[in-house]
Amino acid sequence: MSASTVMSISALYDRVEAILLKAGASPVQAGALARVITAGERDACKSHGIYRIEGILRTIKAGKVKADAVPELVPNPGKAVVRVNAGGGFANPAFELGLPTLVERTRSLGLAALAINDCGHFSALWPEAEALAEQGLASMVMCPSYATVAPSGGKKPLLGTNPFAFGWPRAGKPPYVFDFATSVAARGEIELHRRAGKPLPEGWALDAEGNPTTDPQTALGGAMLPFGGHKGSAISTMIELLAGSLIGDLNSEEALAKLGTTTLLPSHGELVIAFSPEVFAAGRPGNPIAHAELLFDAIAGQGARLPSQRRFAARAKSEAEGIVLTQAEIAQLDRLLALGLDAVA
Amino acid sequence: MSASTVMSISALYDRVEAILLKAGASPVQAGALARVITAGERDACKSHGIYRIEGILRTIKAGKVKADAVPELVPNPGKAVVRVNAGGGFANPAFELGLPTLVERTRSLGLAALAINDCGHFSALWPEAEALAEQGLASMVMCPSYATVAPSGGKKPLLGTNPFAFGWPRAGKPPYVFDFATSVAARGEIELHRRAGKPLPEGWALDAEGNPTTDPQTALGGAMLPFGGHKGSAISTMIELLAGSLIGDLNSEEALAKLGTTTLLPSHGELVIAFSPEVFAAGRPGNPIAHAELLFDAIAGQGARLPSQRRFAARAKSEAEGIVLTQAEIAQLDRLLALGLDAVA
Repeated sequence: MSASTVMSISALYDRVEAILLKAGASPVQAGALARVITAGERDACKSHGIYRIEGILRTIKAGKVKADAVPELVPNPGKAVVRVNAGGGFANPAFELGLPTLVERTRSLGLAALAINDCGHFSALWPEAEALAEQGLASMVMCPSYATVAPSGGKKPLLGTNPFAFGWPRAGKPPYVFDFATSVAARGEIELHRRAGKPLPEGWALDAEGNPTTDPQTALGGAMLPFGGHKGSAISTMIELLAGSLIGDLNSEEALAKLGTTTLLPSHGELVIAFSPEVFAAGRPGNPIAHAELLFDAIAGQGARLPSQRRFAARAKSEAEGIVLTQAEIAQLDRLLALGLDAVA
Repeated sequence: MSASTVMSISALYDRVEAILLKAGASPVQAGALARVITAGERDACKSHGIYRIEGILRTIKAGKVKADAVPELVPNPGKAVVRVNAGGGFANPAFELGLPTLVERTRSLGLAALAINDCGHFSALWPEAEALAEQGLASMVMCPSYATVAPSGGKKPLLGTNPFAFGWPRAGKPPYVFDFATSVAARGEIELHRRAGKPLPEGWALDAEGNPTTDPQTALGGAMLPFGGHKGSAISTMIELLAGSLIGDLNSEEALAKLGTTTLLPSHGELVIAFSPEVFAAGRPGNPIAHAELLFDAIAGQGARLPSQRRFAARAKSEAEGIVLTQAEIAQLDRLLALGLDAVA
């Protein structure tokens, strides 16, 4: 028996979609979820790949996300703000539903936003940034999470890991995209230190009384810290305000209270802001897309890496050679397909 | 002779405006500059107060900013993007000119942006964020600078200190506002370490070969580093793209090349993005402004500070008691008023 199996991207998509349908997801939910999960595996971004399926199933089973929700578009005619109510389903089909209107509105007005409300959330934000870049648009994407991060100078979990993504289109190559948690580390990295019996670096976490700790187990019962001290904390707070209060949705503390646990996927909102370089630069000398290449060249020219390059390299390999999965991963997919929601507690 | 003098805010404004007029600034330029400089002193934000006047005068004298420029509004009817061409003058009168149209467009569309082009820049960005918060609008404000910061993983100055500000309106109290450089420290802080003969903290700077250094003098000849490692570097890069390439203006490397020195004020663009909570939250339960207060209460309730509180406390004191200036500062104002551009090299 070989240690790994190679699947084509489309074969993996079919398998993931079948698992989600078996677990009761409607076609619109299952399709959108399978697309982002498959994209995660394709890009060797394992933390957002098939590893996520079990958490999705557990959250469906617990009744904390609606697997058959029908997202509803509220286009707000004439406004720069488009809304999709995810109806308690996942963010991904809501984004797919809102995308064409967001693109049309951004091209027309120069700047527009998509507010997604009442959505279950488990995925990275780079798929949104990349989808807009494919349309020639720049974007910022952000959402709260559930309260696990103390504000700078504070003692208790209040902010989420609040991811922030940005995308910029490039001609004839993958876009400039970054996507990171505004916590100094992901919760999973603390868990990995715990399992390895390794202390955390200084500045990652607080204990339950709000004192600095380097013990992973203590940290998991305390609070994580934002990246970059008070500046990162301010950006995380901004995300609570823009992707929570502004769009009339939950902040991370409320999302945790509603969920009641950090072991399932939270529900809250998401904000996508899109920019048309064509409209913004109209009447100015030069071309904004070509201008940005000077900066990218200068960054790469001094040996610094552009973000997402590892992901794009993995993607090219997957597209050419398929996706490599371990036998354990294949067995897990088989088990989830056979048992559906019975596969999870 | 007393060691200090108390001036009313309006008396200081008059004095600063008179100095700028004497130096050849037109009333529209002098007024806007005097407002932000006086606001800096009022808020005990000395780094953006009267200390800046000499740099302004030197930049005017060097012909690197047009003291009599007339900013021009390009309202882009029907679009979410308003433009003001500063015409080689300062950003501040350009912002004042564009503000009413930005506010009107944001209230109508929910989201709008002001692109300021071809402006000399020396000021903090919180005045912009506060002006929008006074109108009940949230905002992001950003601009490049001149190349003094190496990208994370790089070796050479390429990015600017690229400030980023955010504002959120609060009912009956000063807004939630932050405004920070995306470099780990301001250039002035490195200079202060040099004068004090103190080594820099680790992670602040590189030498001219791109190696880490804690020597301030070496750092001034090398590069500063972004805050928060690769995440802060990514945000700084985003600012180059949005407030440079997107709006058809210079990035920090080009701004330095055009200026030819780091001892005068650079010219580039500025981007202001404004959000209407009313439009964004329309049809959703609750009120976004009241909702945000829950977060602010929770932050303050665990002993963490909201940004800008020190500034607002200083403002309240200045408004009640006037602004305290040292005799040296008064003498400097007198000298600048008497000599105009002859006061500077």
